[in-house]
Parts: sequence; C-alpha cells; structure tokens
Amino acid sequence: MNETVRTLVVSVPEPRSLDIIFTQDQKKHLFEKYAIVETSALNFAALPEETLENVKYIIGQPPISLGLFDRMRSLKCVLNVESNLINNMPYDHLFARGVHVVTTGAVFAEPVAEMGLGLALELSRGIGQANALFERGMERWGGEGNKASRLLSGADIGIIGFGDLGKALNRLLVGFRAKVKAFDPWLPPSILLENGVTPATLNEVLEQSDFVFVVAAVTSENAGFLNKESFERMRRGAAFILLSRSDVVDFTALMSAVESGHIIAASDVFPEEPLPQDHPVRRMPNFVKSAHRAGALDVAFKRMGDMVLEDMALMERGLPPMRCKRAERETVARMRSQPVTTN
Amino acid sequence: MNETVRTLVVSVPEPRSLDIIFTQDQKKHLFEKYAIVETSALNFAALPEETLENVKYIIGQPPISLGLFDRMRSLKCVLNVESNLINNMPYDHLFARGVHVVTTGAVFAEPVAEMGLGLALELSRGIGQANALFERGMERWGGEGNKASRLLSGADIGIIGFGDLGKALNRLLVGFRAKVKAFDPWLPPSILLENGVTPATLNEVLEQSDFVFVVAAVTSENAGFLNKESFERMRRGAAFILLSRSDVVDFTALMSAVESGHIIAASDVFPEEPLPQDHPVRRMPNFVKSAHRAGALDVAFKRMGDMVLEDMALMERGLPPMRCKRAERETVARMRSQPVTTN
Amino acid sequence: MNETVRTLVVSVPEPRSLDIIFTQDQKKHLFEKYAIVETSALNFAALPEETLENVKYIIGQPPISLGLFDRMRSLKCVLNVESNLINNMPYDHLFARGVHVVTTGAVFAEPVAEMGLGLALELSRGIGQANALFERGMERWGGEGNKASRLLSGADIGIIGFGDLGKALNRLLVGFRAKVKAFDPWLPPSILLENGVTPATLNEVLEQSDFVFVVAAVTSENAGFLNKESFERMRRGAAFILLSRSDVVDFTALMSAVESGHIIAASDVFPEEPLPQDHPVRRMPNFVKSAHRAGALDVAFKRMGDMVLEDMALMERGLPPMRCKRAERETVARMRSQPVTTN
Amino acid sequence: MNETVRTLVVSVPEPRSLDIIFTQDQKKHLFEKYAIVETSALNFAALPEETLENVKYIIGQPPISLGLFDRMRSLKCVLNVESNLINNMPYDHLFARGVHVVTTGAVFAEPVAEMGLGLALELSRGIGQANALFERGMERWGGEGNKASRLLSGADIGIIGFGDLGKALNRLLVGFRAKVKAFDPWLPPSILLENGVTPATLNEVLEQSDFVFVVAAVTSENAGFLNKESFERMRRGAAFILLSRSDVVDFTALMSAVESGHIIAASDVFPEEPLPQDHPVRRMPNFVKSAHRAGALDVAFKRMGDMVLEDMALMERGLPPMRCKRAERETVARMRSQPVTTN
Repeated sequence: MNETVRTLVVSVPEPRSLDIIFTQDQKKHLFEKYAIVETSALNFAALPEETLENVKYIIGQPPISLGLFDRMRSLKCVLNVESNLINNMPYDHLFARGVHVVTTGAVFAEPVAEMGLGLALELSRGIGQANALFERGMERWGGEGNKASRLLSGADIGIIGFGDLGKALNRLLVGFRAKVKAFDPWLPPSILLENGVTPATLNEVLEQSDFVFVVAAVTSENAGFLNKESFERMRRGAAFILLSRSDVVDFTALMSAVESGHIIAASDVFPEEPLPQDHPVRRMPNFVKSAHRAGALDVAFKRMGDMVLEDMALMERGLPPMRCKRAERETVARMRSQPVTTN
Repeated sequence: MNETVRTLVVSVPEPRSLDIIFTQDQKKHLFEKYAIVETSALNFAALPEETLENVKYIIGQPPISLGLFDRMRSLKCVLNVESNLINNMPYDHLFARGVHVVTTGAVFAEPVAEMGLGLALELSRGIGQANALFERGMERWGGEGNKASRLLSGADIGIIGFGDLGKALNRLLVGFRAKVKAFDPWLPPSILLENGVTPATLNEVLEQSDFVFVVAAVTSENAGFLNKESFERMRRGAAFILLSRSDVVDFTALMSAVESGHIIAASDVFPEEPLPQDHPVRRMPNFVKSAHRAGALDVAFKRMGDMVLEDMALMERGLPPMRCKRAERETVARMRSQPVTTN
Repeated sequence: MNETVRTLVVSVPEPRSLDIIFTQDQKKHLFEKYAIVETSALNFAALPEETLENVKYIIGQPPISLGLFDRMRSLKCVLNVESNLINNMPYDHLFARGVHVVTTGAVFAEPVAEMGLGLALELSRGIGQANALFERGMERWGGEGNKASRLLSGADIGIIGFGDLGKALNRLLVGFRAKVKAFDPWLPPSILLENGVTPATLNEVLEQSDFVFVVAAVTSENAGFLNKESFERMRRGAAFILLSRSDVVDFTALMSAVESGHIIAASDVFPEEPLPQDHPVRRMPNFVKSAHRAGALDVAFKRMGDMVLEDMALMERGLPPMRCKRAERETVARMRSQPVTTN
Repeated sequence: MNETVRTLVVSVPEPRSLDIIFTQDQKKHLFEKYAIVETSALNFAALPEETLENVKYIIGQPPISLGLFDRMRSLKCVLNVESNLINNMPYDHLFARGVHVVTTGAVFAEPVAEMGLGLALELSRGIGQANALFERGMERWGGEGNKASRLLSGADIGIIGFGDLGKALNRLLVGFRAKVKAFDPWLPPSILLENGVTPATLNEVLEQSDFVFVVAAVTSENAGFLNKESFERMRRGAAFILLSRSDVVDFTALMSAVESGHIIAASDVFPEEPLPQDHPVRRMPNFVKSAHRAGALDVAFKRMGDMVLEDMALMERGLPPMRCKRAERETVARMRSQPVTTN
C-alpha cells in the first residue's frame, strides 16, 4: 500500500503545551499534515534512533548535546516556542549545518504594546485610581480631578529598543501624532528612519521625552544600563514605562526617582517575580504595577501556532522560514533573559 | 494724535474665565490687538450704548434680547466658549444678519478620545484594578491575571456619533488596525467612508461590535435612545463606553445589562453630577466610573483661546471663521445638552 | 386618492446636463423621489408662478433677480453644479433668508490631484518623452536615460493653496514621505498642522521646495501673484506644476523662467483656452502641457450627482447640507474664476 | 609606534565603481575607517596571500573558488553591490562557515516604485501622449481629451511579487485608498496582511484588478508564468505594468493581448536589451515603453554606499548585517536574473 510519508515533527513545547499554542483547528491540521511525536525535554535524548534520524522540525527547545545533534541528520529547524533562547544546544553547529533556530516571541509585541499604551494612559489620566476613589465616594469632578492629567497626543515620546515590540508600540502611537524618538544600538539609523521615528542617543531619549517606553531586550551587556543618572536626566514629571525585563533597570534607583517626585513610572516586570509581599514598590504612589501580565494573553499564544504552521509550510516547500524570528550566530549568545516558568 | 482704532471685543466667558482659556502670552496678545471690555452675563445688557454699538466680537454667551441685538449694529460673531448653546439669543435674527455663532467644543475631542481609549484599555486589561490588587499583595501573575483580557487590535469597533469626537477617536484607533463601523444620522454616508469607517445602522453597530463608543451629542430628539433593547442586542461580553452625555442612555437599563453579566461598561457621565453617595453604580463591578473628567484638561481650555484668536484674525481680514464650529440655523434649536456649571 | 406630495426641484444644470452628473440609477432615484421641473437658464424666470413659489431646490445657477427671489418663498438651496459662482443672484438676500448656496467642485479634487502627481512624475522621470524616443528608436538605456531623473520620495514639496485640492494632493503624497509645506492665506495655521503639513509663507514655499504645486483658487485679489520674482526665488532645477487657473500666474514670466533653464514646469491651464496654434509654450521643452484635462473625468461629474442627492436628503430631514461646499457671505464676491463653457 | 589596525576590505564592485556607489563624503569615510584594497574580478584570485588571509569584507562579487575561499580565513561578509547573485562562489561553504552574503538591490525599490506609479498614471491619463499632441497643435481640451482616462484612487490593484519593491509600491499607493491584492508564493499570507494588502491567488489578482503590477523577481522556476491565458483572465481594459524582468512574461502573448485591445500595458524591461530597432513593440500603441530606466538613478546607487557602510559598522561591533538583504541557502540557487552589464 502506497501512502505519502508525512514529515516528522517532535513536539516538546514545555513550559507551553500544544493546547496552549494551537487552537483545536490548528492542532487538527498539525496532526493531519505532520507525523507528530510528543515527548518531554527530559526524555528527548531517549527518543528512538529512527525518530532522531528522521525528525525534521522540533517544536520546543529540549537540551541537545553535540552527539545528539549529529544523529539528527534530517533536522531543518528548531521552532522555539518559549521565545527565550537557553544555552542548551550547540548553536554554532546547528548554524553551520544550516539548521534554523527560530523563536515566536513576536506574538507578544501587540499585547505588550497595548498594555504599554494603557499604562501610559493610566499614568496620564489616573483612570483606575479615579475609579477606585469613585467607588469610595471620594471622586473629584471635572477639572478638579484633572490636576495631574496630560495628553499623549503631540507629546515627545522616547522608545528604548526598537525590535518587534518597539515597532508595535510605534504603530499604536501613529494616531497620536506624537514626536517619537528611538534608541537602539543594534539597529542602523536608516531602519529607524524608515519606520518614521527619529534615531537618537540614549541621553537624547531620556532628556527630551515626556514618556519613555523601555522595550529593550536584556542581553549579557546591558544589565542595569538605566540607572540613577538616567532617571536624573529625564524631564521633571516625565513618565517611565518598563515593559521588557527588570534587569535592564537599576530598580532601586527607579523607585528613588519616583519617590523623590522627579518622575512617575509604571512597570510590568520586577526584580523578583512573584514579588515579596513586603517589597516597597507595592505601596508606592505614582508607580503603576502590573504583574508580568502584558503579553500573556491566550490570543498571543495561539498566534505561536499560526507562526509555527506557516513557517513549517514554507520549509516544506524548500523556502526559508519567514514568520518566526531567526536566531543569529552573532547574537544568540548575548540574549540572556530568563526563561519563563509559567505561561 | 493718530491711533489705530482697535476692534472692540466684549468678554463674558463665564463659567470660564479669560485666564482659563488663554495662556499668559495669548492673553497679552488679545489685549494688545483688541480693545477688550470685560463684563458678566448679568451686566451685559447694561453696557454703555457706545460699547453695544461698536462691539464686533463677543467672547461668551450672555443673554441677548432681540432689542439688545438690534442695537449691536457692528456685531460679527459670538464666540461661545462654553460650547453648549443656550437658547438665550434670537439666533434666527443673528443668522439673518450674517452674525456668526461659533463654539469651541472641538478642543475637547482629543482629550476625550484619549480618555475613551484609556477606558477601553482599562476594560480590556484591568490595569487600574490589577494595580490596586498589587498594592494589597493580591496580584495574579502572568496568564493567571489575564483570564478576562482581550485585544483592541483587530477588534470590531462601533462608534455612535461621528462629529469631532468620533473623528478624533477614530484617528487614535488607526494604529490598532481595527474594523471601525459608525452610526451618525446627521451625516451622509460618504463622509464616514472618507474617514475610513464603514457606515452602519444603529443596530449593526450594537450587534457587531466588541467595543461600542458613544460620542453622540444629546439633542432634543435622542434622549434615552440607547435602552434595554439596545444593550440586549450587544455581543455577550462586549464593552460599552459612554463619553458624551448620560441623557442619550437609559442609565438604569445600562446598569442592569452590566449587572447581569451581559456586557461590561465605562462611563464619564452620569444622570446626576455629582452623583449621590448611595447611587448603586458606585460599587458595581465591571463598570468603570470617571467623574466627568474626560475633557476638562487645562491644555484643552487653552486651545479655546487659540481658536478664538485664529478666528478673530480671519474675520479681521474679512474672511469667515474656520477654526471654531459654526452653529447652524437648522440644528441650533436641537442641541440640548445642559451647560456645565464648573470647568 | 392620497399621494405624498414630492418636493419640487428645478433642474437647470447647464453647461452640464443631468445625464452628465447623474448615472442612470441616480437619475432614476432623483425622478422617483422628487418632482423635477427641467428648464434652461434663459427660461428660468418664465417658470409658472406656482413652480417658483414651491421650488425648494435648484440644481444649477440660473440668473435670479431680487424680485424673482422674493417670489421663491420655499427655496432652501441652490445646488450649483458648475462650481464657479457667477454674480447673477442676490447672494446677500439668499443668505439673509437662510437659503444655502452650495457647490460641487470638490469632485474635481481627486482627479486633479492624480493629474498633478502624474505631471510631477513626468517632470521627474520623463516617462512620456522617453516613450516617444523609444518609438523612434532613439531611447537611452538604464542610467544613460536618467541623467535628469529625480525622486519625489523624501523631496521638499510646496503646495500653494490648501483647499479640497491641496488636501487631496497632500493625501496622495503620504506614501512618498515627503516634507510638505503649504501656503494658504485663507486658512489658520492650525488647520494646516492638523493635515500634517508645515504652514509657510509664500516665499518659504518658493525658496525651499523641489516641487511647487499651485492649486490656489483665483480670486479678485490674487491675479498674477506668481510672477518673475517668484520664479527667481525657486531652487535651480525645481519643478513648478500649475493646476488651478492660469490667472494666478504671470504666464510670460513662467515661460521665461523655464526657457532660461532655471526651473522646469507643467501646466493644465493656459491664458487662452484653446490656446492659439502659434503660442510659444507649445514647443517649449521642459514644459509639460495638459489641455485643461485634469479634472474633467466622467467619474468626477457623476460624483456631483452623489453630492446633490446626499445633500438634498439631509435637507429633507431638516439638516443642513454637508457634502457640497457652502458659499460664504464673506468670500462669494471674491471668487472670480471664469465659468467653464464646456465640460 | 602604536596604530590601530584598520579592518581590511577588498573592493571589486564592478560593473559599478566606488564612485558610483559612494558620495565623496562616504568614500572618504570608507577609506579613513577601513584599509581598502582595490582590484578587479579578474585579478581577485591573484591577491597576495596576506590580503586573502586578512580580508574581512568584500565589496563586489568576484569569482571565488573553494580553494580560494578556504584561504580567506577572516572573511565575514560578501557585500554584493551588483544585486544579482552569480553562481561563482561556493555559497554553501560560505554559509556553513557563517560568512554572510548580502545584496543591495533594495535601493532600487523606491525609484522603481515611483516609475511604476508614473507608468500607471501615464496609462490612466495619457500625460506624455497628450503633451506630444499639444506640441503638434492637436490637443483635445477638457473632457474631450479624457475619453480613456480613469482614476487610480479607489481602484482594484494587484501586485505580483511582494518583496522590497512590492512593499515600496504598496506604500506609494496608501494615499490612493486603493484596494490592493497581492500574490507572492514565497511569503506566508500573514506577512501580506500585516502590510495591509489582501493575500490572493495569481488568478484572483489577474481577474479582479484594474491595474496589475508585476514586480516578481525572476527565478529558475517562474520563467514565462504570465502567459496568454493570464492576459485573457484580466479585466477588459485593465492595465498591466511590468517592472521586474521580462523573463517572467511571455512577451509575445503580452503584445498580442495589447494589440487585440483587451488590455493596455507598460514595461520597463524587454526580452532583449537594447531592443532591436525593428521590434514590433516599438510602435505599438497602448503600450508604454521605458528602456530599463526605472531603478538606475544616481541617488539609488549612492544608497548602496550607505547600506554597505551601515552593515560593515554593525559587523564591526559583532552584530549581524541588517540593512542589506541576506542571501539564503534555500533560495540563492533559484535566483536567476541576468546581471546587468551597464549601470
């Protein structure tokens, strides 16, 4: 009997699961189109030799030794759905053999950008705070309640980091006719200009913005690059919104800058997550807190499934993956954000 | 001695004041360029005959009887800075003689639109609510805190009323790539199409939207047109955001629709303002309250001064006013929102 | 027998005809919904008294004496489909009684803007000229044929006049990421800013642009305001594109400026139309000629019918017209372009 | 004596020259920052061993044998400024060792897109043709000259190929509010959607467009894929604009489709370049010819220099090149357009 041999995929998406990243329809499509072997990171190395020899795509990022990699002669792509790259594979060897390593983190750009804008509007208008006062019968009406209010429209806005998330944020700001500057040391200025933002130094962004959004990925080099001096450079009363990882910030210095009244702030990320109950930021006014909720929307996870299916379909046709982001030889070792432990 | 005779302006901007609507620089410019007579609504009729005869522009909307109007032979424009039109002038006679009546309410479009978007993001992501929980040590991390979260990007959005505010809101939504439908019985469909929104009936807007923004001005005809049946037509779980005047809504029916869990809501306006301490909406969950704070930003009031100066400058050159909105014979009598008593 | 009385409309659209401005479907709708009396400008005054007494809308601009106007007690609107306002009605009396005078010239904005962009691209890339050379076997290949070529993308662009046409042109330029400046003495600067263009003086526009588009309406005041000195102010090699009326330009000076090699030019309008066979501009190189073809597209005329129907529908509901442009007391006397004699 | 050792670059940009791709300022910067060895493709292999050993970047695409490549131990990137990839290097070995191969063809996207729009406007409005008639005193005025005119605004537009050029063209069309469909078999649909165009099959593009732009790169697989049947599928009177390479089209079938009156066309590329003097397309009406002039603008070549400098600067900092386009293992062998012989 003659049957088309389906391409072999090993699925090890932890800490996600297939049900988190695929809708039922997508998952059905996945299983119809591909031969799927499901395993865990722990058991990956113990897969039968035939599976290792024939696996073309891996969904996930199980630990892979060099010896193990050498046995996977058919491997074309590791589709990392966790999005942070752990140093648990011989990346150089993968790249040398032309095996792609791709990540799906771009799915978070849109939800995080919306949260970032929401945090900026909360800082500008005190919407949630005013609602809480209203519930306690302590609201202030009309202009009386707007002493500290400001507009985003027409404001000077600075974006630190101009990857997928910076671009998504910039797109949301289009209707605000804001003057957007961006700092990104990994990008040539022309790419910023093409996106309609003004290339700027870090200091220009800090000194000339009413709102500063931090969306820079954390690397092995930029830990704590936003520090006491950075906050001092900011305009008095300006808003600082942290959306990427807390490691890029000296968090104590940030709290001091808010406490002193120099700036106001919002953050989705914290030095420890969950944060200890007695952490002083908890009860700090003019500091809006969000418990790492910016990106983790069900709809974002489901888009990972879309990306995986689209890129596997391209590769099945002999084309390179285009939807996920490719890891690069030059930068793979520099990406250092901690993997998430929960979704 | 030969001095240029300056154009005579009577200033009676209550309940605003010149200091509310002009920056210091603008006010200086106003007094240098024009001869300003300041008075109150109460004393307006008692102005000296020579003043009445020569006044060219009135900043404000003092009561004007027909007899009084007949004596103001030089009057060219009433620049109403309160924005609601009170029925205290013989509008038909003003229009017949070619006296413009203009309002500055467009200054509120941008701040109200930003607040509207902020309320929508609060309903979508629970930013203020999550911050309050965080302060009490009760936050939920990551996806655990996002059970009810949703995206505006790509959503079906309905706008009821497509005047200055509807247009400003639609502009803010550009970056969200949302599918925007609008209902406005006062506008031809082609104007909606030119603004990139799909013309729709009221029922289509209610039935096919994830977010419904109400920005329709209240008229003598549309009191309570959004009622029990309207809310029932809405998608289960959809968000209703009220930004114009509470009179367009059956507020009790709105509260019931939220209480039943059918929709979620936010409102900047209420049947009584200030609202009694025991009003049930105060402690209603899934109903974000804002104490008529959407438009009353200092920066908005100052733009009134800009508009007044720009339009007086145009009229000084023999041109019609173009910056403020003109009252129309056909609709002046239908506009019926209560004037504000505070700024 | 009980029949709804249909609103009475007198149709006198010359030099257009109903078939020029309405599609068959629209015309059918017009005759079903309204009672139409068709006449000519010459015979208008001789209409039966009952018709004059009951006519609510006039499509066209027949001569109307004051005495005639007084007899038209039901008149609400003159819908001028020629678009230039002739001084053949007692406009002040119409305005005093609240009769609207509206024009449909905005239909030409889009086709003229496209032609303007086409002329600019012809000046930039010599497309038509190169095609003619190609047909004669004299084409130059690749870079050899591009010695005089330039880009619109990123260029400094100046627009003189920022009415419907200026706005339409500016919209077409959005994708070119050009830096657009505009000069319009009839508009407050804030309206230019809202449209994303930089307000500028006439001299700034002339001196700082690579492309100057002239779309200013001719008035009683601006005849020949673009003259020898204006062209001298322009950048060497800059392009001058005339789209509105030749009267705003000293045409002889324009030709000299092109002949001397200082600028290049294109024009859709000429001092005499048709232009004498021996006019020197005919064979002038670096001067692209278009025989007043920019706006006169069938699709534009048909949109007049749309506008007329939409505005009559609004007025039937007691609302003011919003689709056509309203004549203004202040400016009606200044508008002085010659009416067209052909379509 | 202590001197910084400058990075070694071998320059072999033929058929370009350094003076074509660099402005004087850029060239000065290049020579200050890098140690430049200039040679020719012919002499490349004869470079001194020390040069080969130390060269980090090659500007150009000289023939490189496997043996030669093995000697270039420091090579990081081949910056191909011709833009077409010739099969004269062991690409697989370059990729395996992590040597980037990048091209600068994106510089042509903007000028070609402007030419494409210009050709579409020439087909729509006959600007160059009307100018030629005007010069001979045979112009037709106003609507008489517009029998065949049409608008791009609001039209159905199809784009075949959605790489850099397709994206640039789509951007220019933003202001036209056109409905744009695109077909690109190398891209996942989501990338088209993100760019605001509707993904479509080839037949949908052909059958449902008023204007079809062909900007697909030629590959080893798509020669002649637009043939007799394709043109028959097009709407009667629709416009076909060919901007990429003539090999993707059955040119004889295209001429027949124009000759029969079924479609109109414009092309920047031809089966032979230069084209024989007796080729029938030369005198064919309704077929606008451009002698491969769309991209070859001086300003485009100078942007190549920008791209080269920006990417070398990134690589000097240990980052991957981001400005030029990277050749891909999967597709390098499929790209088959003939290199240009002149600039």
